[in-house]
Amino acid sequence: MRTLCHDLPASTPGEEVVLEGWVQRRRQLARVTFLVVRDRSGLAQVVLPAGAAVPPEETVVRVTGTAAANAQAPGGVEVTDALVELLTEPAATPPAELWRPGLDVSLPTLLDHAPVLWRHPAQRARWELAAASLRGFRASLDALGFTEVTTPKIVGTATESGANVFPVDWFGREAYLAQSPQFYKQQLVGVFERVYEVGPVFRAEPHDTVRHLAEYRSLDVELGFIGDHRDVLAVLRDVLSGMVDAVRAEEAAVSRTGALPPVVPDEVPVIRFADALALVGAPADEPDLAPEHERALGAWALAEHGSDFLAVEGYPMAKRPFYTHPWTGNRSAAPSTTASNSFDLLFRGLELVTGGQRLHRASDYERAIRARGEDPATYDAYLQAFRHGMPPHGGFAIGLERWVARLVGAANVREVTLFPRDLNRLTP
Amino acid sequence: MRTLCHDLPASTPGEEVVLEGWVQRRRQLARVTFLVVRDRSGLAQVVLPAGAAVPPEETVVRVTGTAAANAQAPGGVEVTDALVELLTEPAATPPAELWRPGLDVSLPTLLDHAPVLWRHPAQRARWELAAASLRGFRASLDALGFTEVTTPKIVGTATESGANVFPVDWFGREAYLAQSPQFYKQQLVGVFERVYEVGPVFRAEPHDTVRHLAEYRSLDVELGFIGDHRDVLAVLRDVLSGMVDAVRAEEAAVSRTGALPPVVPDEVPVIRFADALALVGAPADEPDLAPEHERALGAWALAEHGSDFLAVEGYPMAKRPFYTHPWTGNRSAAPSTTASNSFDLLFRGLELVTGGQRLHRASDYERAIRARGEDPATYDAYLQAFRHGMPPHGGFAIGLERWVARLVGAANVREVTLFPRDLNRLTP
Repeated sequence: MRTLCHDLPASTPGEEVVLEGWVQRRRQLARVTFLVVRDRSGLAQVVLPAGAAVPPEETVVRVTGTAAANAQAPGGVEVTDALVELLTEPAATPPAELWRPGLDVSLPTLLDHAPVLWRHPAQRARWELAAASLRGFRASLDALGFTEVTTPKIVGTATESGANVFPVDWFGREAYLAQSPQFYKQQLVGVFERVYEVGPVFRAEPHDTVRHLAEYRSLDVELGFIGDHRDVLAVLRDVLSGMVDAVRAEEAAVSRTGALPPVVPDEVPVIRFADALALVGAPADEPDLAPEHERALGAWALAEHGSDFLAVEGYPMAKRPFYTHPWTGNRSAAPSTTASNSFDLLFRGLELVTGGQRLHRASDYERAIRARGEDPATYDAYLQAFRHGMPPHGGFAIGLERWVARLVGAANVREVTLFPRDLNRLTP
Repeated sequence: MRTLCHDLPASTPGEEVVLEGWVQRRRQLARVTFLVVRDRSGLAQVVLPAGAAVPPEETVVRVTGTAAANAQAPGGVEVTDALVELLTEPAATPPAELWRPGLDVSLPTLLDHAPVLWRHPAQRARWELAAASLRGFRASLDALGFTEVTTPKIVGTATESGANVFPVDWFGREAYLAQSPQFYKQQLVGVFERVYEVGPVFRAEPHDTVRHLAEYRSLDVELGFIGDHRDVLAVLRDVLSGMVDAVRAEEAAVSRTGALPPVVPDEVPVIRFADALALVGAPADEPDLAPEHERALGAWALAEHGSDFLAVEGYPMAKRPFYTHPWTGNRSAAPSTTASNSFDLLFRGLELVTGGQRLHRASDYERAIRARGEDPATYDAYLQAFRHGMPPHGGFAIGLERWVARLVGAANVREVTLFPRDLNRLTP
């Protein structure tokens, strides 16, 4: 019966224990040999006689021995009188010393050797926070009456945005990889009212930046029977709160990564897009916020509201997709005809989430599509749901990798992605 | 404040209530008009004066009125003195009468009008069981110390199986859609020991059958430090048990779909492949089980073991992928040199899961790859994990759509897939 390293301190001294794991480190001293064993739960120290043959680091072993108290060992218990069996061949030397506290390698090295370097406890902990975030995301939404859905990743038309799609040879016909589940999650509001999906989205991003991947995980949410985008923002707040709670519960991983889980305020502070431009001293006719504007707004939200989060609402329609609902303007003395019921959520001065209210009347869609110079017939499958009755609705999407990068302070989303895909990288 | 239909019976008679939902049905009688409203929680009856103007079925409405006891109404409470507001334009006539108890349409009609026909409560309930299954799958594995992972769906080589891949134009270079996360989940056993992923897999299946889709959801599991495939089967049992528990908890959906959730035995009965052939009277040199053999074995398992599940172990190596672990043979008087430590799980006489133990030594991989006439260098990224120490491991994959189809007795997996993709279908 295997004992996990984490449970070794609970063993009775003198008891026989069996550990299974990787050789994290071997230290051959003059009078004694130490073997540190790593498994999914943590580390344990094994004591062997001086000169004992020990397998190289990363070899997979089974250690059968006796639990013995030792105040110097991790958790106060080590394994003595040990028999070490190899469960595989002796391992090749890893591309970095995984036993060191930090993984000090270049980004290309990390990515080229991902299958091995993700074993480093501090690196692995980054993904443990990603997995916790997914758990918190789903738990929050399940509690709010949402239904998980799955939507197709191979689509027949590149309608949402003609650019940046990956063509697929689909039985000899051209199809595309889905850039987002947007159209499908909206249609499914007609079925389930409240839906979410965690899935891959594909963007043929020709830019090589620290924030973009060609394939990433999108945490998508859509809900019906809303008043306006503020109802969407309220659900987003609850979801973030659930994600942060799940992250905090991973105490060891939080500590290993140095992550600083944010406090999610009961109500996320909101600023109008026009006011945000004025605040950062940008011209009033700017159609979008530049990264330095986002940073300045993040600093302002922290100083003014003590919040790591800030929602900027009322983005210009011109910069939003055609299904965006125009501003309904009851919260401002100066309602705008060019603004929208949409928002970006900044997290520590970086855009993390885009959301808002969508159009819900079939006639509004037809008008919006014609205004782009397109034929509504192209969108027939999508518009079907609207012709047969759709409630006012809206939603948002969170990029998982971007969230985790910001949480742990990684400079590049690739550092927190298990096997990133971008303009230049298709392996490992 | 909106009242969900499901909560209407808890209202105090005389209380003002607001319902929001779709017009499920309107019935204009001589002395009274009934409106049945549908929301995500259920149905509610609204009483209007005879001759009242009522919107057509599927129109989205807000109903403000008074809760009133009526033993004939669903849940014993209806809404009277009602004001009906339209939240959208009057809906177009749906492609089938959604208020009828059953959705009696052909498969092409169901699929062409998926955005609307999935609204039928009995159809929607099928997906509710799919969502419950996903929840149960993850909860079981989380409790067993598994980590959720996400692996790339765009891959550089079509190594696992050269056939049936979809080529992708990846920035002008040829890449492929992943047919399975197999290679990645194995590499991640080296990091997390126990991993799972729920994600799309893509098979360019040229056959148009009731069991195959070009894109489906694979529930993938892989775990390290196993003795042999029987340890994998034990985890599979626990996972199925968790999925069934989650399904059972959806009582309304179970009842609407007529699903028969199986009993998962404490130990799934196991039969050797060679014995299974003999039992069904097939020649001893058959390399695989035909569908009629699977059906016969399902009937046998039910009669002999009272079980809806049967594992067939020891499949011929010749029919398994190169990473399959050969039979280690300590459970049979006649160990075979051509059998493998792998199994298929039959659910009610249909293959639902394939699983088993994988090779874990780098030298075994090199030998197996050369035996196929291939160069191990092609698999370099994959083999990296093995050269740096991998434990004995194995895993399995469950097809979500196939599971749900079998659970609710659907003849075709397309009936339980929200937006299926196959040889002929890319829309809606």
